[in-house]
Amino acid sequence: MNLFFCENIPVNPPLPFAAQLDEEESRHATKVMRLQPAEVIRITDGRGFHYQGMIIDTKGKKLEIRLTDRLPIFDFSRPRLHLAISPLKNPDRVEWLIEKATEAGIYKISFIQTHRTEKPRVNVDRLKRIAIAALKQSMGAWLPPIGAPMKFLDFLKQSKESEKFIAWCEGEHPLFWDTLSGDKDAVVLIGPEGDFTSDEVKEAKDWGFHPINLGVHRLRSETAGMVSIFAFQIKCGNL
Amino acid sequence: MNLFFCENIPVNPPLPFAAQLDEEESRHATKVMRLQPAEVIRITDGRGFHYQGMIIDTKGKKLEIRLTDRLPIFDFSRPRLHLAISPLKNPDRVEWLIEKATEAGIYKISFIQTHRTEKPRVNVDRLKRIAIAALKQSMGAWLPPIGAPMKFLDFLKQSKESEKFIAWCEGEHPLFWDTLSGDKDAVVLIGPEGDFTSDEVKEAKDWGFHPINLGVHRLRSETAGMVSIFAFQIKCGNL
Repeated sequence: MNLFFCENIPVNPPLPFAAQLDEEESRHATKVMRLQPAEVIRITDGRGFHYQGMIIDTKGKKLEIRLTDRLPIFDFSRPRLHLAISPLKNPDRVEWLIEKATEAGIYKISFIQTHRTEKPRVNVDRLKRIAIAALKQSMGAWLPPIGAPMKFLDFLKQSKESEKFIAWCEGEHPLFWDTLSGDKDAVVLIGPEGDFTSDEVKEAKDWGFHPINLGVHRLRSETAGMVSIFAFQIKCGNL
Repeated sequence: MNLFFCENIPVNPPLPFAAQLDEEESRHATKVMRLQPAEVIRITDGRGFHYQGMIIDTKGKKLEIRLTDRLPIFDFSRPRLHLAISPLKNPDRVEWLIEKATEAGIYKISFIQTHRTEKPRVNVDRLKRIAIAALKQSMGAWLPPIGAPMKFLDFLKQSKESEKFIAWCEGEHPLFWDTLSGDKDAVVLIGPEGDFTSDEVKEAKDWGFHPINLGVHRLRSETAGMVSIFAFQIKCGNL
């Protein structure tokens, strides 16, 4: 079964509801999959739900559909993980992380500009497209918001999660797995290739973050991101 | 600190021991890092150990070194994971998996040709080079052997691990995490893009494999491989 993404469905629409796929999704439906009027498709709003929909009209650039049923998919009762990572020198590695994080059901992804961040920007639009493709491929329903990079300290100040962690290779810290409760929302900070500075870790502690380690292996930043996502999802029973 | 890889160190050499880096590693040491005689470097044999070594001569194509100390790094007392996965249509995804699996400390990787495998071959030499780079980058000591693809049934017949699992999206199976003991060597089979057939799963069961699932998300094959490696390493306390 294929899944289409449609961003402009209201939060809880009266059904049946008339909607339009965007041009890219419409082209895929009509040119690649050659779908015809009256065919039934599955759509996600990226906000936790799938919809059953029927194709009404394929003539315009935007496919007209009628949503008939709403299926709750994303489990909002489970704890959610927010990953905040430095942009990396190699954008491929960030893109790969976004794909895998979306597949694994991450709740939110942010970028933090740290002292050792070498390349402070990311292409948020491109990352969003990668997340949408991963969401569709994995039949998911939650498109993680991807924030534009923000300054490390600004990020610390506005973090509201119940459990706050900063992964740091230097020094002795408890294992992430042992520290996680598994029943609360959490945020994890992952540094750039050269890791956080000790000043940054001190600042993070001042704002309630706990230093953790991710095991005996020296992991690349994007791998550290993945390990923390998978560990969180396993602890919460999502994987 | 940089780590060099040297394949031709005997299993337990008398120290000090005279060794040579291969041409690629030698070029990296002399041209990129501009190392000089008498400098001290760290070397791994990829079989569980690091060595401290001194550079003796940089003139030839193969750097002459003298190994002076041997450091056990890989913990052979811990349970080990063997991952067997179908080759995938997109070789990038296999290469990515090899990199991440090596970083995360996988013990062995095999390729299995299944009914729905579309592209039955992999470039084992290239994958080995990727694993070596990942090993060096992560300061590891165990280079996972990468087997040439073999027929699914032949693989089943020769599996000797204490715990044997086959990941299968169809039907209801226990979660991998709940099934793993965490104190025994294990093998996990991951299918191609179209998954295993029910006949293959039946065959695997006949050979002592237990069907498991990897959670609520529909994962790509290489992501499923990563989730099983990370889950195993977390369960065994390695991550």
